Amino acid sequence: MAKYVEMNQDQLQAEHDRLLAKYEALKAKGLQLDMSRGKPSSEQLNLSDDMLTNLHSIDDVFSDGGVDTRNYGVLDGLPECRRFFSDLLEVPFENIIIGGNASLRVMFDYITQCLMPNLLGPGWMASGKPVKFLCPCPGYDRHFAILEYYGVEMLPIEMEDDGPNIAQITEAIKDPQVKGMFCVPKYSNPTGCTYSDEKVKALAAIKPAAEDFRVIWDNAYLVHDLVEPEEGDKLLNIFPEALKHGNEDLFVEVCSTSKVTFSGAGISAIAASEKNIAAIKHRMSKQFISNDKINQLRHIRFLKDVPTLMEHMAKHRAIMAPKFEAVQQAFEEGFSECGIARWTHPKGGYFINLDVLDGTARQTVKLCAEAGVVLTGAGAPFPYGNDPKDSNIRVAPSFPPVEELKVCAEILVISAKLAATEKLLEK
Amino acid sequence: MAKYVEMNQDQLQAEHDRLLAKYEALKAKGLQLDMSRGKPSSEQLNLSDDMLTNLHSIDDVFSDGGVDTRNYGVLDGLPECRRFFSDLLEVPFENIIIGGNASLRVMFDYITQCLMPNLLGPGWMASGKPVKFLCPCPGYDRHFAILEYYGVEMLPIEMEDDGPNIAQITEAIKDPQVKGMFCVPKYSNPTGCTYSDEKVKALAAIKPAAEDFRVIWDNAYLVHDLVEPEEGDKLLNIFPEALKHGNEDLFVEVCSTSKVTFSGAGISAIAASEKNIAAIKHRMSKQFISNDKINQLRHIRFLKDVPTLMEHMAKHRAIMAPKFEAVQQAFEEGFSECGIARWTHPKGGYFINLDVLDGTARQTVKLCAEAGVVLTGAGAPFPYGNDPKDSNIRVAPSFPPVEELKVCAEILVISAKLAATEKLLEK
Repeated sequence: MAKYVEMNQDQLQAEHDRLLAKYEALKAKGLQLDMSRGKPSSEQLNLSDDMLTNLHSIDDVFSDGGVDTRNYGVLDGLPECRRFFSDLLEVPFENIIIGGNASLRVMFDYITQCLMPNLLGPGWMASGKPVKFLCPCPGYDRHFAILEYYGVEMLPIEMEDDGPNIAQITEAIKDPQVKGMFCVPKYSNPTGCTYSDEKVKALAAIKPAAEDFRVIWDNAYLVHDLVEPEEGDKLLNIFPEALKHGNEDLFVEVCSTSKVTFSGAGISAIAASEKNIAAIKHRMSKQFISNDKINQLRHIRFLKDVPTLMEHMAKHRAIMAPKFEAVQQAFEEGFSECGIARWTHPKGGYFINLDVLDGTARQTVKLCAEAGVVLTGAGAPFPYGNDPKDSNIRVAPSFPPVEELKVCAEILVISAKLAATEKLLEK
Repeated sequence: MAKYVEMNQDQLQAEHDRLLAKYEALKAKGLQLDMSRGKPSSEQLNLSDDMLTNLHSIDDVFSDGGVDTRNYGVLDGLPECRRFFSDLLEVPFENIIIGGNASLRVMFDYITQCLMPNLLGPGWMASGKPVKFLCPCPGYDRHFAILEYYGVEMLPIEMEDDGPNIAQITEAIKDPQVKGMFCVPKYSNPTGCTYSDEKVKALAAIKPAAEDFRVIWDNAYLVHDLVEPEEGDKLLNIFPEALKHGNEDLFVEVCSTSKVTFSGAGISAIAASEKNIAAIKHRMSKQFISNDKINQLRHIRFLKDVPTLMEHMAKHRAIMAPKFEAVQQAFEEGFSECGIARWTHPKGGYFINLDVLDGTARQTVKLCAEAGVVLTGAGAPFPYGNDPKDSNIRVAPSFPPVEELKVCAEILVISAKLAATEKLLEK
């Protein structure tokens, strides 16, 4: 079979009709499948079920130092949890705060803090001028949703195979109204790429015109390898690099156990410079008395330390890797000859980034939906949902079982090819 | 013995010397006692220990309708929890959202939401003019801390025995920069008073100049009676009253289980009008994916329904009531003749409000601290910590055991009397 772009109209029409017949047959099955979000599967959640029962009685609720985790207090989190994240992120204990059940909330709160008057200054909104933010994309739709909610103007930055385009960033940050940037530096959502040492070093050295510029370093997938960790991607620690340039205040790192333990009931952590930690804690001290320390205690009793965490992540890997393989294989088989698609082969994270023929992503997602497969909305990984090429589809293989996933991937392949032939036939 | 104000200088000096000797003897014991915050005691926390273990296995984590509480989703909380708070607050199901582990955070978030652009308008900060807030006082120091953090100007409103002074409120809300008010309408912190029906009806009918005016109706102590509930205070439901005046959007009610189950790991609820719920949910949908539903499930399995909750609160009452009695008795015995103090006899809540001789509250708290008894800072129940009469002391009897509490109260009595004689001798 030839590549679609090399086919003449008759060949395309024949291919189109063949695909349509297959598509209609699949559609007739009346499936209801969901590959839209990076949700862990029940099987993965079951890995942490010991955490449901690991506090047995009154005697178990005291943390190191005898703190009653049921009562008020300990604003910045149990010391044992802070030590755990200190080890994991390789950031000093003093620079760690434990957050609530979602790093998304930590980020929303931090953006809010920076927009408004805070301990470090009058806030990004103070001048009354538009606030702008750099958004490497494709990126995480929920990052963009925070900015859109606050009316922050989003400037797309091209995402390369090893991180965002530094030249574009360097140019953009000359504008003092550009106040920050969102990054998912390891196993990025959705491309799965990890920032190279070179990119991390370049980012650590940036000199933004805005003195209150902040990079939200969303290290969501730091231990989420799909291969043996030794063979997985390595991300350079941003803080020592930033320190070399006096830039330690520019980076605020977050992570969570949402995809380690329970997605809705994990714990999160913030790592930041002394100055940033002080400002965050100052706000927190007005915001609440403590996060849920019982959940913190359940976590640390379960995860124990970084080696135990890594053993736990190996169990996630054993569930996740075959799912990614199933999708990759379906893409390989379905797309190999037609030449209309390319996709990523991440060594970790939760997504495969699929690029279909320009101008057909929306139609592909629509065709999938009509055949009973829900995908992330086309364009979602771009600011304002605007994928300029209309080619990007975020594939989330984590939730469905492998057998379902194969069906999803088959329908996605056929839909993408059908949309491509439709598009090419229009010409 | 005569009243202090009727004593001559010699009599006062003799009384002062007698008190000082007693004070020094108590101080010499080197005590370390804490009566500073409304913290539940361990004995109270133990009442909810079944909640630590009431999810036994994988089979237990599904809520009504089969939702896996471990995973993402259900932004506004488990339906069974919303039903519970709907019954408790007598507000329709649709008007209830479940929040995180602290109603304080819900209030901080809501103030933040109102200050900034939001679904309902440009926000309180938009005009650039100072934002002002009404603060019935003595009131809750953490409410005032939120406002102070945001630079909101706090206007004190006199707290009467049955709620805030309505005339002062009516006058103040003519200023369109007055954007809201904090209320603890039942067993108020710290006076313990409950707003009378008359006050609730008057508040429900207010006509503020600011169309985005909001009353934070912090119903923190709604089931926290110190007497049999039938003999306890009754608070009129604000929403039906407000509705009569088209004012349903003016009130946002919050409550939590912080003083029902675990103070650091409870769940909270918001009750509000359709319009306000929509705006809150809109912001929440950008802020996080869900609150901790496992904790919600633990709560509803434990608290079950309002009758079960009331049985549980009777156990709290059995622990709390003797503590309040011990303090009341110590005050009765110690202050009866000297005429320098008056205090509240609340039927519920967490505090006794003590008024000592004008100009001696700070000195009393200082003397207590030096004798090893930590009290809430004098002035804390007033905006900017400024008690104009320097007479108010918030007494929090919940945490120490009764025997300790008796010692605390004794030291407080002697300190207040000593400070009073010092003050009167100065004249």
